Amino acid sequence: MSGWHAIPGGVTAAAGFQAAGISCGIKLHGKRDLALISSDQPALAAGMLTTNRLAAAPILRCRPVLRRGKAQAIIANSGNANACTGAHGLADADAMVQAAAGALRIDPRLVLVASTGVIGRPMPIRRIVEAIPRVVTALTPRGSHAAAEAIMTTDLAAKETAIEYPVDGKPVRIGGIAKGSGMINPAMATMFAFLTTDAAITLPALRAALRQAVAHSFNAITVDGEMSTNDIVVVLANGTAGHRTLQVGDGALGTFTRALTHVCETLAKAIVKDGEGAHHLITVEVRGTASAHEAQKAARMIANSLLVKTMVAGRDPNWGRVAAAVGASGAHLDPARLTIALGGITVFQHGHPVRVNPLHLKRAFEHAEVLISVHLGAGTSHARIWSCDLTEGYIRINAKYTT
Amino acid sequence: MSGWHAIPGGVTAAAGFQAAGISCGIKLHGKRDLALISSDQPALAAGMLTTNRLAAAPILRCRPVLRRGKAQAIIANSGNANACTGAHGLADADAMVQAAAGALRIDPRLVLVASTGVIGRPMPIRRIVEAIPRVVTALTPRGSHAAAEAIMTTDLAAKETAIEYPVDGKPVRIGGIAKGSGMINPAMATMFAFLTTDAAITLPALRAALRQAVAHSFNAITVDGEMSTNDIVVVLANGTAGHRTLQVGDGALGTFTRALTHVCETLAKAIVKDGEGAHHLITVEVRGTASAHEAQKAARMIANSLLVKTMVAGRDPNWGRVAAAVGASGAHLDPARLTIALGGITVFQHGHPVRVNPLHLKRAFEHAEVLISVHLGAGTSHARIWSCDLTEGYIRINAKYTT
Repeated sequence: MSGWHAIPGGVTAAAGFQAAGISCGIKLHGKRDLALISSDQPALAAGMLTTNRLAAAPILRCRPVLRRGKAQAIIANSGNANACTGAHGLADADAMVQAAAGALRIDPRLVLVASTGVIGRPMPIRRIVEAIPRVVTALTPRGSHAAAEAIMTTDLAAKETAIEYPVDGKPVRIGGIAKGSGMINPAMATMFAFLTTDAAITLPALRAALRQAVAHSFNAITVDGEMSTNDIVVVLANGTAGHRTLQVGDGALGTFTRALTHVCETLAKAIVKDGEGAHHLITVEVRGTASAHEAQKAARMIANSLLVKTMVAGRDPNWGRVAAAVGASGAHLDPARLTIALGGITVFQHGHPVRVNPLHLKRAFEHAEVLISVHLGAGTSHARIWSCDLTEGYIRINAKYTT
Repeated sequence: MSGWHAIPGGVTAAAGFQAAGISCGIKLHGKRDLALISSDQPALAAGMLTTNRLAAAPILRCRPVLRRGKAQAIIANSGNANACTGAHGLADADAMVQAAAGALRIDPRLVLVASTGVIGRPMPIRRIVEAIPRVVTALTPRGSHAAAEAIMTTDLAAKETAIEYPVDGKPVRIGGIAKGSGMINPAMATMFAFLTTDAAITLPALRAALRQAVAHSFNAITVDGEMSTNDIVVVLANGTAGHRTLQVGDGALGTFTRALTHVCETLAKAIVKDGEGAHHLITVEVRGTASAHEAQKAARMIANSLLVKTMVAGRDPNWGRVAAAVGASGAHLDPARLTIALGGITVFQHGHPVRVNPLHLKRAFEHAEVLISVHLGAGTSHARIWSCDLTEGYIRINAKYTT
């Protein structure tokens, strides 16, 4: 019993939010590349930014906004990451903020900015700034899908979701849009997630809820082990639902956190499923480790192993590659108690391979979702990571991204 | 002035060594899959074994031999790794040792054993043991190439090399064979390197020389970031060259170490060039870090980055991917002093992209060897890692390795 149900509307499902996505000419063929999300009133803002030491200009511009914890709009473009662009890049990120604030008639300190795309290219900033009044005019409470499209790079599908659940008998909504694809990894990576809610909540409670939701969603996925210069997850809460304000220590905050985690998990899994060239979602479950850190380490080693990822792509149950990755992770294990299962079928147990009909095993790889479970026999901690397979499609996409 | 010159003969170039490689029926189509290297007399033996926590049975059997530091033969097979095979696997590794010792009429404690291939399959041990007298009969001082072929898995080319240089006016030879391809990484990975020398040297000196040689060769390469259950590098020194014995603290040991490093580097680069599906050798040079550890960390992050590897495969100078990898490595850097060069052409300097003719840049990717240099502006340490590009060929090979 989750207590919530899915609703349409994505990032504009929550009351008091509008969004838009238009083409401003960064991408070819008139594809959408400029998104705006706006709250009718100033909202509380919590966020998590990339830890990449070459954080892009827009990330640097978001830091003080998130420190203050208040925002009213997010302006975002795709096609150019505005990363490794020096002082010009910072000026360009500022120009986007100023233009959005001007057209929305709000304080520029309430505007978050995000960019994704090629690194190290000057921004076509005039085109972007000139288009900003147009994206403001395009704002609508039904603008979620257009905004989701406008932040796509190599994504094949726009990603949006929303849910509703009651607090004090009042409906609370949480929704969001995301982009991902290549470069998805630990500690986030070329990914955006923009979340909105009409819940009434304090800033410390919002921050705590987001931290926990991200740990179990965006920080539990990996496509290719990269971490980008531009990652951002942000949630805006405008409080219009009108229930008693959620705060730290409050039982109702637990429910909100689980609901927010569900929204984040839905978007995170959509990102992995849409990994560049991916055909399979891989769930790696590691149990029986001495610590949660060791479980994470082992799960990540398996999830990022090229040999495991190509094994799944080839629908080939060569589970020795899972064993090799577990052993290479450095996590403590007892070979005599190690267990490995593919798609629920145990292939290695108590230090010995288990005789399995290869055809049964092959069938486990015919599903869109493949489960790899490992028990290390060295403790009681566990971790779960979502990943995707590695196909020739990934290479085709990434061998010609700029040209 | 290196002081040494290349000679033919590979692992049998040094006086007093013989080798052989035959087919015993593990691989299909009568391909060679059983190798033997033998010294006419007991030799000193130094080695480095995988640190994978699921070390294969033959690795466990080599540990006491290398602890004693004395060996006379190496028996090795390809096609089956004898890993994750439990107690049966240990018995099978023992059986190989006993059969080789019996046929060679030597003490079994002087026999090293190594296996490479599929993990988790029972060894066809009868076929192997029955073939061992035949591989002993086939031993010859010109057997290096056959032995090099017999340890190949997905390698496209046999890898062997040898050099000669004078000590006290006496010719000393160092030679070896290796196998690599997929799974090559840090701290060694599904790779064998079997080295021989007729140098007279103490065991502590031999161990010190090997440790240094491996650090700058086999531990400075990466193909796909994996570390296998079966990695082994071993050097046998039989002392027949007849010069004054090299020992720790001896100036002549420095020359020997450099010569051994050269042999290891030649084999290591051959492994990377032959990485599964690889078309380019990538040399990553990182300078200007606060510590050697940080330089290693940044170099490895670049060298293992799928986006960098596919960039080189696509001959596409999208250097932002190098910047993203450096930033993600966590190494301290000063964005305002960071420099990135591709093929010797500076593309990013002092925090800003450098305007470069894209055609010049593209040309840097037309060479078989591509140099990526990064200066972090945060210190004086440096590191170098060799890697290879990631092509659709890697996926094709690894999506169907067992089937």
